[in-house]
Amino acid sequence: MRLTSRLWSAETFKNRREKLKAVLEGKKLDAYFFSGVSDLYYLTGFHAEGFYGLFTRKGQWLFSSALMADQVRQNTQGCRIIAGKRLSASLREIRLRDALKRIGFDPEQLNYRLGSVLVKEGLRAAENPLIEIRAVKEKEELDCLRQACQLTAKSADFIKTRLKSGVTETQLVRELERFYSRHGFRKTAFDLIVAMGSNTALPHHVPGETRLSKNEPVIFDIGCTVGGYRSDLTRTYFYGKITPIFRRVYGVVQTAQKAAMGQVRPGSTGGRVDAAARRIISQSGYGRCFVHSTGHGVGIDIHEPPWIRPKSPDVLKPDMILTAEPGIYLPGRFGVRIEDTLRVTERGYEVLTKS
Amino acid sequence: MRLTSRLWSAETFKNRREKLKAVLEGKKLDAYFFSGVSDLYYLTGFHAEGFYGLFTRKGQWLFSSALMADQVRQNTQGCRIIAGKRLSASLREIRLRDALKRIGFDPEQLNYRLGSVLVKEGLRAAENPLIEIRAVKEKEELDCLRQACQLTAKSADFIKTRLKSGVTETQLVRELERFYSRHGFRKTAFDLIVAMGSNTALPHHVPGETRLSKNEPVIFDIGCTVGGYRSDLTRTYFYGKITPIFRRVYGVVQTAQKAAMGQVRPGSTGGRVDAAARRIISQSGYGRCFVHSTGHGVGIDIHEPPWIRPKSPDVLKPDMILTAEPGIYLPGRFGVRIEDTLRVTERGYEVLTKS
Repeated sequence: MRLTSRLWSAETFKNRREKLKAVLEGKKLDAYFFSGVSDLYYLTGFHAEGFYGLFTRKGQWLFSSALMADQVRQNTQGCRIIAGKRLSASLREIRLRDALKRIGFDPEQLNYRLGSVLVKEGLRAAENPLIEIRAVKEKEELDCLRQACQLTAKSADFIKTRLKSGVTETQLVRELERFYSRHGFRKTAFDLIVAMGSNTALPHHVPGETRLSKNEPVIFDIGCTVGGYRSDLTRTYFYGKITPIFRRVYGVVQTAQKAAMGQVRPGSTGGRVDAAARRIISQSGYGRCFVHSTGHGVGIDIHEPPWIRPKSPDVLKPDMILTAEPGIYLPGRFGVRIEDTLRVTERGYEVLTKS
Repeated sequence: MRLTSRLWSAETFKNRREKLKAVLEGKKLDAYFFSGVSDLYYLTGFHAEGFYGLFTRKGQWLFSSALMADQVRQNTQGCRIIAGKRLSASLREIRLRDALKRIGFDPEQLNYRLGSVLVKEGLRAAENPLIEIRAVKEKEELDCLRQACQLTAKSADFIKTRLKSGVTETQLVRELERFYSRHGFRKTAFDLIVAMGSNTALPHHVPGETRLSKNEPVIFDIGCTVGGYRSDLTRTYFYGKITPIFRRVYGVVQTAQKAAMGQVRPGSTGGRVDAAARRIISQSGYGRCFVHSTGHGVGIDIHEPPWIRPKSPDVLKPDMILTAEPGIYLPGRFGVRIEDTLRVTERGYEVLTKS
């Protein structure tokens, strides 16, 4: 992924840090300790492992190893950088000097050893204040997401033309990777999935040497990364003469996806979107064959809030990005999944992965 | 990465689990809870996120979500699989039934939230028993490592022929990726580094649109993955007429690498290998410009024990795999790093990345 000092302006980070301060205030936190690569990318524009950040209501510190110090310095702005010192000692010093009492950390974003060190220093596990901020995308983020989604939709059309008897799953993965690369985006959004024949019944199939035969389904679950933002799209194709059972299952999944999308609008919830898809599939008799969530938010992470799953209370707001991806899997036989990435608009939704 | 039920035999996993039991006994642990992808790959042959394992002296359980259950079942052998149940409840049941008292977990391999759940269930942070087992490679592992290293050495020779004025770092990364892919190995060992000009002074440079000019150095830090095992190699080339200062620095790094390798033999330590390289560089006056460790173990993980760094007590044994990669970095000017992957032999070492 490209460093992004060029992609984002200093203004962008200033605004994001202001938003963060407001949320910290609302949560009665004096500061928050960030360790997640994506959170730190959002707050600094530098996408790398191995550095941490403490963002207080007054300012921001980055903690780095001596080795990383130059890179952190060159790729971030407006942060004080502490390099090559013991994290616990540095935290203690800042805490005392700035009289920070309540400092939170995200218990899912750091390991038990580091978490234990932080707890000893008086920090506490607390809900990540960036969750709500990152879920609503800014204009520049939407530009990246839009571009990633459009290229992915194009790649789906392209790869359809490459279906032929004998081609392997891995070969098609490579073709897709080359396609993104040719268009200037070398990073896929995740390990691409190509599944053929009965492999389509496995939602998380790992592509291998299976070869395409006539009259078999193929699933492509694909995406690329633009400016650090990802796209997510799934298409199920049938190579040859469609069987009646495939046609029926495909129709159910398509109807379920439409039903889910019909619930996407400001004020709706992830739970409501999920329920709409699930109802259609259950009514068709395939309820037990829909073994995953209906969708998820997409952004710097491929899976992020809002969560589109049973009972998810996440309330949709304009400019949130989410997927709708119901599926039906008949073990040992075949599966169908259809997925698009959507933007929540003022009144409903916009499909970003339209080709 | 390919699933490996085909690559490894059932015997392999039985042997590894026996080794584990012996180490558990030595550490007076009744069981160990594994959450790391690489540890679980080593013990089961299935390389995926999202499942956990409890390995006791009597048997082994894998815990998976309902969604992953089929894949875990199909890709592992000899384990009882518990799917779609609360982890804490399942652990409690097994603990009580099998009277397991001392169960350890690796505090660096799971997040603070999960660690806290385990601690509540009576588990404790304890040194990972696989560290010592995984460090010494078996024959099949060595075959994979050897193949990965040889292909990487070839790729270094290949990419040297692609140096020309105007080519960008990113273009050369893509050429290398295609090279591995053409040879049947789609996964690189890590995000490849190509650094040109003054970027060579940054040990962790992220490749970008910098173009090659005449009379500039280029660093390639590259590797691929074979059967889940990685290779690691760095070459520093000079495009054009070598400057005296570059020649001098290159010579120091080369001598330092030879000195480090001279300390590689059974019974030596990571600290001793590191000290040998560091001494040469310090004596040359560039001590402050060698800002990282001399090396690291390589295997399923790109960085794993034995650690080759100052004061590392890790004792070398035959069939351990490690890198020797001293470097000198002159900020804003240029850097030199030379890295090879070695196997510890009965009497010394073997360079696996020889072309």
